[in-house]
Amino acid sequence: MGVVILNFKIYEEGSGKNAMKLAKIAEDVASRVDDYIGIAPPSIDLAEIINAVSIDVYAQHVDAVEFGSHTGRITAEMLREKGAKGSLINHSERRLKLADIDFLVSKFRELSLTSVVCTNNIATTAAAAALNPDYVAVEPPELIGSGIPVSKAEPETVENSVRAAKDVNSKVKVLCGAGISTHEDYVTALDLGAEGVLLASGVVKAKDPKKALEELVGLR
Amino acid sequence: MGVVILNFKIYEEGSGKNAMKLAKIAEDVASRVDDYIGIAPPSIDLAEIINAVSIDVYAQHVDAVEFGSHTGRITAEMLREKGAKGSLINHSERRLKLADIDFLVSKFRELSLTSVVCTNNIATTAAAAALNPDYVAVEPPELIGSGIPVSKAEPETVENSVRAAKDVNSKVKVLCGAGISTHEDYVTALDLGAEGVLLASGVVKAKDPKKALEELVGLR
Amino acid sequence: MGVVILNFKIYEEGSGKNAMKLAKIAEDVASRVDDYIGIAPPSIDLAEIINAVSIDVYAQHVDAVEFGSHTGRITAEMLREKGAKGSLINHSERRLKLADIDFLVSKFRELSLTSVVCTNNIATTAAAAALNPDYVAVEPPELIGSGIPVSKAEPETVENSVRAAKDVNSKVKVLCGAGISTHEDYVTALDLGAEGVLLASGVVKAKDPKKALEELVGLR
Amino acid sequence: MGVVILNFKIYEEGSGKNAMKLAKIAEDVASRVDDYIGIAPPSIDLAEIINAVSIDVYAQHVDAVEFGSHTGRITAEMLREKGAKGSLINHSERRLKLADIDFLVSKFRELSLTSVVCTNNIATTAAAAALNPDYVAVEPPELIGSGIPVSKAEPETVENSVRAAKDVNSKVKVLCGAGISTHEDYVTALDLGAEGVLLASGVVKAKDPKKALEELVGLR
Repeated sequence: MGVVILNFKIYEEGSGKNAMKLAKIAEDVASRVDDYIGIAPPSIDLAEIINAVSIDVYAQHVDAVEFGSHTGRITAEMLREKGAKGSLINHSERRLKLADIDFLVSKFRELSLTSVVCTNNIATTAAAAALNPDYVAVEPPELIGSGIPVSKAEPETVENSVRAAKDVNSKVKVLCGAGISTHEDYVTALDLGAEGVLLASGVVKAKDPKKALEELVGLR
Repeated sequence: MGVVILNFKIYEEGSGKNAMKLAKIAEDVASRVDDYIGIAPPSIDLAEIINAVSIDVYAQHVDAVEFGSHTGRITAEMLREKGAKGSLINHSERRLKLADIDFLVSKFRELSLTSVVCTNNIATTAAAAALNPDYVAVEPPELIGSGIPVSKAEPETVENSVRAAKDVNSKVKVLCGAGISTHEDYVTALDLGAEGVLLASGVVKAKDPKKALEELVGLR
Repeated sequence: MGVVILNFKIYEEGSGKNAMKLAKIAEDVASRVDDYIGIAPPSIDLAEIINAVSIDVYAQHVDAVEFGSHTGRITAEMLREKGAKGSLINHSERRLKLADIDFLVSKFRELSLTSVVCTNNIATTAAAAALNPDYVAVEPPELIGSGIPVSKAEPETVENSVRAAKDVNSKVKVLCGAGISTHEDYVTALDLGAEGVLLASGVVKAKDPKKALEELVGLR
Repeated sequence: MGVVILNFKIYEEGSGKNAMKLAKIAEDVASRVDDYIGIAPPSIDLAEIINAVSIDVYAQHVDAVEFGSHTGRITAEMLREKGAKGSLINHSERRLKLADIDFLVSKFRELSLTSVVCTNNIATTAAAAALNPDYVAVEPPELIGSGIPVSKAEPETVENSVRAAKDVNSKVKVLCGAGISTHEDYVTALDLGAEGVLLASGVVKAKDPKKALEELVGLR
């Protein structure tokens, strides 16, 4: 009954034709559960996937610029025109300057896009919460891609991040990420006060991504 | 009878629905001249435009990474799978590290993608030529978007860039950019030894982009 | 009776021999007032100035790395060994990633160095305060170097930044910057709840920096 | 009879008091050989070391900016005023944009500072040579700090880099780096056509740096 956001990163298994397949899998699984499932495919696949599936599609990154002379960038306005739901902001593999996170969170609010600001610990979660995004997704970098779930390895990081975020901003929702792959990881995250999880390799690089996603949300 | 590459940048006039319109205009004009016309729309519009037009479509930027844990990036392989012809590399608004330009030029050669490396003066044009890309596009930054054509303001920059590039690498083709908007600018560039032009605002932000592009290639 | 931190930037008037002169001026003025005056000269001048004056000397920037294979960087430990009091962090001309600001603030606390985190508006001031630095210095970027004092142009930015910072973290002290040059600007900043000011060109680029600094602290 | 440039990086063994010790060791060894020995200590130690030793002192990095509103930077002019001989430019741990390398090489020529541009392979060595620096130092990144000398692991990289550089610019001198620590590594580099070596950990992190440097230049 939580939130699951699936970051395809630019794994080969999550790019191009594989991205489309994975998006369809996520759509299918989402139709059979009460959990919210959103996906974040590569920017180059975004438009085609938005046109092909009915679930919410997020960008993995957006640039802190306006329309103009900025070759090779993507603005919030461009995401909205394509029909994206929102974007990850400040992912650990695409860290942003504080002023740029703030620029994007404000702009997203104005454009009714959903902001998911990634952070790396309790202090940065509190800081991000102060900017008033929709979600903060806390991911201890050392656990990303490790298969060791943050909800098990550092339950106190999750609990204290939720508390620190709510202390600063009672409306912000907290996701937890890094190492999440099983239903137990997910349920533990919810028990610790998170609204859900942000995950990637646990599903995208699974031998059978469909089975992995079904397992995550408790369908198996 | 030269090469025209049209960079849409992320001007509002060259994004989303406007990007598609502009792509169709370029395709139409290209069908009526012997000149080669390629376009470089925003990454988020790339896939839909490639599917919709028959002319060559370039990315504006590509990241110097392989498939993997790199949230929010675009690889050369992803461009190829979508059917892009190639990409601008190192545009003045998206400068890259020397090692990354080299990584991309090598990778493009391997994948049969066309590399268009942008530079800012004679010395960097020679340096870029040493990396063996398909094109080097020299654009004095102070003239970009100025409406003052490099082929008129600094004809010696164009001539000497062509000479410097060919001295280092006789196979490389040189484009010139910055301030190009009229047929005369274009013809002058060819006369100075360039293979063609890279331009943006002169067409994309023109009141009537179709007329501007027709004028550029001498249809009016 | 407030705090004045003077950023020399890398103005020619604040570099090399000029940096030393300016440091001596600041030391002299500091000896004649109750206000706290600290200075932030270029990194390359830091060690010699620390050895030459008795007032607190800050770095303008420090890198979010540990000792090791990081050619061309400066660590917090290196600042401490030289005897620096602390450093500006995230100046608008040297913006940092959120995770790196947090890294530095934590490290500074551990090493008993003073952290002065620069921000650009109310929201980022609150976010920075959540990281628990010693100071947050709010500087609306459009006013930096403008000669228009933030305390006059946007008194509500100062007041609300102080309030937002204290709401998140009652211990954090707020400086205000951008456009500050007169005693009135400084006093207004204190009246609005700030602990003091961060300034640069108003003194460093003044015709007579000594007179300008004396004027700022009310000696004229 | 070659050139040895010793990069202190920001190893703890090469910072602060240790940097001064290491500088004195390098000066002492230099006085006993015909080889040229230059050192590149951390920027924060630069001024004090320049004042204390008679050998050439290089910066590890310099920023591609002019004097002005650039908090936390170092300009070429600042290096010259302090008496630095020159700087490493584009070290693999501090890679620069192509346009910025060109800016710095030109500026250094104007100011009579010595430019040592680091590169990572044959192609980038040729590209850097086209910018007309004093030295290009080729260092395959995978060998840096490995203890496996490039002159042994990839002799053809050294030979072909020298050839490629000279083809583009007969005046440029080539150093080789990465994994260099013994006299044999150094002699082999000279035999392969390099003018000398750029090294770091092999001496800086040696148990006995003095012995290591003496060994390198054949004093033991």
